[in-house]
Amino acid sequence: MPSVRKLASTLGVSPFTVATSYERLASRGIVVSRAGSGYFIARTVHPPVREAPLSAPRSQPSNALGFVRSVVDPSSHALAPGSGFFPREWMEDALPPAVVGRLLRGEASFAVPAPALGTLEFRQQLAIKLAALEINVSPSQIITTFGATHAAQLICRKLLQPGDPVLIEDPSYMVQQAQLLDAGYRLLPVPRRHDGPDLDILEKLAREHRPRLFFTQSVLHNPTGSTTSPAVSFQLLSLADRYNFFIVEDDVFGDILDRPAVRLASLDNSRRVFYVSSFTKALSPALRVGYIVSPPEHVEALVDAKILGVLGGSALQESLVTSVLKTGRYRVHLAGLQRRLHKARSVALRSLTDIGIAFAPEPMDGLFLWGEVPRHVDVDKLMADTFEHGILLTQGTMFSPTGSFARHFRFNAGLCLDPKVLSLLRSACRPT
Amino acid sequence: MPSVRKLASTLGVSPFTVATSYERLASRGIVVSRAGSGYFIARTVHPPVREAPLSAPRSQPSNALGFVRSVVDPSSHALAPGSGFFPREWMEDALPPAVVGRLLRGEASFAVPAPALGTLEFRQQLAIKLAALEINVSPSQIITTFGATHAAQLICRKLLQPGDPVLIEDPSYMVQQAQLLDAGYRLLPVPRRHDGPDLDILEKLAREHRPRLFFTQSVLHNPTGSTTSPAVSFQLLSLADRYNFFIVEDDVFGDILDRPAVRLASLDNSRRVFYVSSFTKALSPALRVGYIVSPPEHVEALVDAKILGVLGGSALQESLVTSVLKTGRYRVHLAGLQRRLHKARSVALRSLTDIGIAFAPEPMDGLFLWGEVPRHVDVDKLMADTFEHGILLTQGTMFSPTGSFARHFRFNAGLCLDPKVLSLLRSACRPT
Repeated sequence: MPSVRKLASTLGVSPFTVATSYERLASRGIVVSRAGSGYFIARTVHPPVREAPLSAPRSQPSNALGFVRSVVDPSSHALAPGSGFFPREWMEDALPPAVVGRLLRGEASFAVPAPALGTLEFRQQLAIKLAALEINVSPSQIITTFGATHAAQLICRKLLQPGDPVLIEDPSYMVQQAQLLDAGYRLLPVPRRHDGPDLDILEKLAREHRPRLFFTQSVLHNPTGSTTSPAVSFQLLSLADRYNFFIVEDDVFGDILDRPAVRLASLDNSRRVFYVSSFTKALSPALRVGYIVSPPEHVEALVDAKILGVLGGSALQESLVTSVLKTGRYRVHLAGLQRRLHKARSVALRSLTDIGIAFAPEPMDGLFLWGEVPRHVDVDKLMADTFEHGILLTQGTMFSPTGSFARHFRFNAGLCLDPKVLSLLRSACRPT
Repeated sequence: MPSVRKLASTLGVSPFTVATSYERLASRGIVVSRAGSGYFIARTVHPPVREAPLSAPRSQPSNALGFVRSVVDPSSHALAPGSGFFPREWMEDALPPAVVGRLLRGEASFAVPAPALGTLEFRQQLAIKLAALEINVSPSQIITTFGATHAAQLICRKLLQPGDPVLIEDPSYMVQQAQLLDAGYRLLPVPRRHDGPDLDILEKLAREHRPRLFFTQSVLHNPTGSTTSPAVSFQLLSLADRYNFFIVEDDVFGDILDRPAVRLASLDNSRRVFYVSSFTKALSPALRVGYIVSPPEHVEALVDAKILGVLGGSALQESLVTSVLKTGRYRVHLAGLQRRLHKARSVALRSLTDIGIAFAPEPMDGLFLWGEVPRHVDVDKLMADTFEHGILLTQGTMFSPTGSFARHFRFNAGLCLDPKVLSLLRSACRPT
């Protein structure tokens, strides 16, 4: 290439302009710079490639890993009426790229790492947020993570040994089950009722197996949409005391509920509950920011596990969420999200019910509709037919450690109303 | 509180202004909003708290976890002349909060999650960056992570079982050793020479123990600053073939070197080398963005481990780094960093040598100076004295799986010239 000085004078522009342009070309791999000798055309130019998905699935994904991979794969072009993410259009207002700069402008510096627990400003803001749920904690009990899955991994690493028994709801979040199985723990399934876990069975399992942990979602349980009643919450904590187990309360959907609900963490006062949440669901799936509220005596062990696994958190992500919380932007976004969800949910419920899909009579809420197709439906055929049309269904078995719920499906209230989806469901459910 | 409408009319401002102000107060925990009934003063107001550090250390941290916690603790006010991070002032230009917005403005949306491997644009940009190092890979071999520590964790989970032997350099990065020990692997220390690992000992260990992995830093090895020679690199890969082990090549400091250097990954062609790097060191410690370049047959297993551990990456962080790379900003920042480092390094080397600290005669480079205090120095007293003055020293034993190097220290070229540090070192090294 011509020298920077020469090209600048030829074009009548400043050398800075030319140097910047050369650097951009170098960053794209089009030219290479050699110290002291200038810029040269690169031998090979790398055109942007279109990428094949990871081994493309040949049928409906039947497990958590397959499902997650497909749902986040932009090249799959599949419809996922059971996705765990909010519809894209509902989230565009939350964190538009153009406002990220404004939200960060007050931040001091990205030239230093985050403290081991997470940035203090973020943990203070979280403590304020939690106080509104009557969860009263000190910022020094909060450990930031890269989302709720990461939070659960840290807790397990510190509290469990491979082979240990763990209580988990049936049905429940499939990725949580996959994580526990992958780490070598033994799952003890506790049936989930409309008002929380089945305490009789839970007690029987606790007495027999003496598990150290119980994983539960008190508010807007995934996939059923149920919320644990105050009475069941209280009894559950009593059982935890009697049988000496800890509880991981996963509250990733809690912010979506537009009315008060009791969290185990608000009753427990940081004795037996690890409260876990994140901003991936309600704020932005492009962020990975979550946190654990831990009983004080376990904080240091969790911090050690965090350092040994990922070294530290992202101060940039944490600053961004702090600002979203502090400016009130999060609350405004949530209010809009709740309005949209409310409307979409009642339409979806009606449409699916009309088709013949059955829902529990108890009031459920949130992003998911947990419905059962009639007995006469050939579910395998439905799975195959929908897959052929590029539709990923979320069959109930995926959520069940006992392989139950074969006729249940998790529907996403905002994504299940696609005409193709409804028409395939309708013909499958038609009485024969 | 007065109703929104009422206060707006009293003050003669728009209801929107009042509602926004109320929401900000609510986000700070000063008022609470109750749906349908308005805003109320919160019962308790949470003042920002100053936080005590995690259990404050009572002596120099002697292990990786204690050191990392202290170095990233903003409340400790300690000087860390052996820190692994660049001086704050050297990094302020790289990612000022005010330019983050500009860098992200072109991005499509943060309303969708990142694909399982990482965003395609980022992996394409990484492939271009790697091609400049003669590492020719497809974006589909690249898996993004939350930094290099996270990358190493994923590789270990997929390739090793607890109890497995692992080859590691002596000395080497202390957090890597701590991570391996915590996961239950057995360390096989290989002495690090000025031109790379000691291949005779490595071969002996490989023959006897049949390890599956070797962890190494080819370029700007931590803590010695040495770079593996092409000849040693070639022989190392031959040994990997002969004894059937994989190599994790950690290149987190590579971008800081201002001259070409051979990476194992460029010779190996994705057969036996997992190449790992990150942007935490050279771009911003407030980011946690790293990646693995994997042999193709291990990509899917690594993706599964990533999903089960953290669900996915941060599309926001990845977009930001993509933009920093694409605009040429990263290369401009690196050039400045290299200039500063070059200058600081020679001054630091001279000052420490004058004090009596000895350095290997072979040329070393990068952020670290690996020096040895004279035999007569009472190292325990030096450690205690400096700790009393709020100075964290980084003693060689911390880097050694054999507990060697008690008289060695790792110095950070940009942070060791503090007068208090130099004066304490000088009096400790003074001939008796």
